[in-house]
Amino acid sequence: MSSQQEMVLLDFDHEFKLGGRLPKAEVHFETHGTLSPDGDNAILVCTPLTMDSHVSGEDPSGDPKKAGWWNFLVGAGLAVDTDRHFVICSNVLGGCKGTSGPTSLNPDTNEPYRTGFPEVRVEDMVALQKKLIDHLGVKKLYAVVGGSLGGMQALQWAVAFPDMVERCIAIATGSRLSCQGLAFDVVGRQCITSDPNWKDGEYPLDGEDPVGGLALARMIGHITYISKNIMDQKFGRRLQDGQKGEGFATQFAVESFLKYNSERFIHRFDPNSYLYLSKAMDTFDLEEGFNSLQESLSRAKSRFLIISFSSDWLFTPEDSIQLASCLLQHRLPVTYANIETELGHDAFLIDAPEIQSMKRLVRGFLEPK
Amino acid sequence: MSSQQEMVLLDFDHEFKLGGRLPKAEVHFETHGTLSPDGDNAILVCTPLTMDSHVSGEDPSGDPKKAGWWNFLVGAGLAVDTDRHFVICSNVLGGCKGTSGPTSLNPDTNEPYRTGFPEVRVEDMVALQKKLIDHLGVKKLYAVVGGSLGGMQALQWAVAFPDMVERCIAIATGSRLSCQGLAFDVVGRQCITSDPNWKDGEYPLDGEDPVGGLALARMIGHITYISKNIMDQKFGRRLQDGQKGEGFATQFAVESFLKYNSERFIHRFDPNSYLYLSKAMDTFDLEEGFNSLQESLSRAKSRFLIISFSSDWLFTPEDSIQLASCLLQHRLPVTYANIETELGHDAFLIDAPEIQSMKRLVRGFLEPK
Repeated sequence: MSSQQEMVLLDFDHEFKLGGRLPKAEVHFETHGTLSPDGDNAILVCTPLTMDSHVSGEDPSGDPKKAGWWNFLVGAGLAVDTDRHFVICSNVLGGCKGTSGPTSLNPDTNEPYRTGFPEVRVEDMVALQKKLIDHLGVKKLYAVVGGSLGGMQALQWAVAFPDMVERCIAIATGSRLSCQGLAFDVVGRQCITSDPNWKDGEYPLDGEDPVGGLALARMIGHITYISKNIMDQKFGRRLQDGQKGEGFATQFAVESFLKYNSERFIHRFDPNSYLYLSKAMDTFDLEEGFNSLQESLSRAKSRFLIISFSSDWLFTPEDSIQLASCLLQHRLPVTYANIETELGHDAFLIDAPEIQSMKRLVRGFLEPK
Repeated sequence: MSSQQEMVLLDFDHEFKLGGRLPKAEVHFETHGTLSPDGDNAILVCTPLTMDSHVSGEDPSGDPKKAGWWNFLVGAGLAVDTDRHFVICSNVLGGCKGTSGPTSLNPDTNEPYRTGFPEVRVEDMVALQKKLIDHLGVKKLYAVVGGSLGGMQALQWAVAFPDMVERCIAIATGSRLSCQGLAFDVVGRQCITSDPNWKDGEYPLDGEDPVGGLALARMIGHITYISKNIMDQKFGRRLQDGQKGEGFATQFAVESFLKYNSERFIHRFDPNSYLYLSKAMDTFDLEEGFNSLQESLSRAKSRFLIISFSSDWLFTPEDSIQLASCLLQHRLPVTYANIETELGHDAFLIDAPEIQSMKRLVRGFLEPK
């Protein structure tokens, strides 16, 4: 199996949904396996909010934290089998991992775009992914796969390029975010924009980032990614070791966990990018421009696998059921499964015993017809 | 009916739960009605996190926003009938409405205590309320009533002073907060403490408060006070009027709502007080010091009315059921009702049609035996 990390500069002849153009777009991506001569065995993996293109493979250092984020699902002999498929995972438009985004240099000014980067919608992300797979010689996607924001991209693919997508796997996602999810995200963005170091997005990229605001936004998000019960089970109301529970410093075990996680996060993420990507997630609405979600999904021609998790309160099983119902009404082949787990929204990222059924579902769905 | 707002300086011969003493404690409180000669018709109303002692009565200005916060429940002829009862509602210890708290002057230094104020637990709040009712000549509380943090105080009363409490009404509360609720609160406190204007609590009280952090904390809290469905119904994904949905300023209707609410809030609340009170809520655990919740509640001798709201996800119906079950095991008279509503945790503060049943339950429960 050959794996590669690559960068390509593409002509991105694309008017952004809310206006704006890029002369060229850079895309950083990872591939695994080999494209068939007919260009018909490719699987595109779309990334969730804060993941990058490193979807599979061990790190040479052996550090498990640097292994691919879907290492248990994507690889040789795994459910998304890189021995049989050419798997592509690209960093997302608007992100901060090499693909064009607010940290990229604006060739007109030779300065980073920062908030001058065009606003990014999921439609724009998918448009750039389309350029990438054209460039790679892919004729038709055997499948497009994603969870959460990645699932939104997968759904958008099925609706925007119906003839290009044979199979669509949308996990822990929905046609749009609830108002509650939106509300947590708007507070998260305000944490960033009210950080004095944000400076309207003009913070020095190698200096004092508005990491305080970004850490707060991440902590809010993180709470929504896990279930109430798993939090009670894992942390409960325990105090952090050595803390007496006085004052306003870190005291509760859950606080220490959230802080540790957010501190790791802020070192690998750009605050402006977080604003762009969370906004893209919030504004995604598969129904927009159509009279109904049914009308929108009636454009699709793929086979669908929709998976939800019982304890996911960001994208609930009801969100997935709504998708599956609309697809069924158009007599599209759809498999829907709700997996019982306490792991919450992030379940799709965790190689836990009860998530084995996700692997089996994906493997079965990807078998040749 | 006579209503009064008063301030009293009490000898507060009390060692705070985590240590510390006050030479004297100020209490600001409101009373309605007249204490019977036997001192046995008093009802103590305990305040939720951010409410003050103004529980009942219109404002002379006629401004409905300045009317008592439980005006639909407490008043002449209402469920908590001020024609028959002497109703007391005091501002809470650690708050910022006159009762001793971080904004009070430390007589030793002639400076505000700020974070030098002793840490406050619900037990300490109740201890000061006990001093107040002793001072007022109340021999036994006909009832103690509260919702949310107020409900925690009511439960603490029943356990700490079993012979003083004939009836206990605990609404939208529990024996302790879940880890998820705790997590939202710790992030809220970090919003305040990471605001550079907070200055370790030493911000000037008449100048630049750390209102940015307080506003963020309030917004996070506010989302947890309302249900997912009501948010979808009230705001959905609508953009604020006149907004095109671009950039990172206020765009969504729900964002505008949260901002409007938090801006009103920051003008009436002190950031250090918010830290103290939210910490008191987080650390409350009726089980602490006992082998079980049952053992703790076995001290109580009151009749109980426990009310939950179906869509409350901060204190769920399960939290109330747990309380009611423990009480029943001790053969204490307990009425438990779960009210079907989409209004979420804050339902007890809203005079909505489906909350009429809360009024009826309270009225019936307060009838003489």
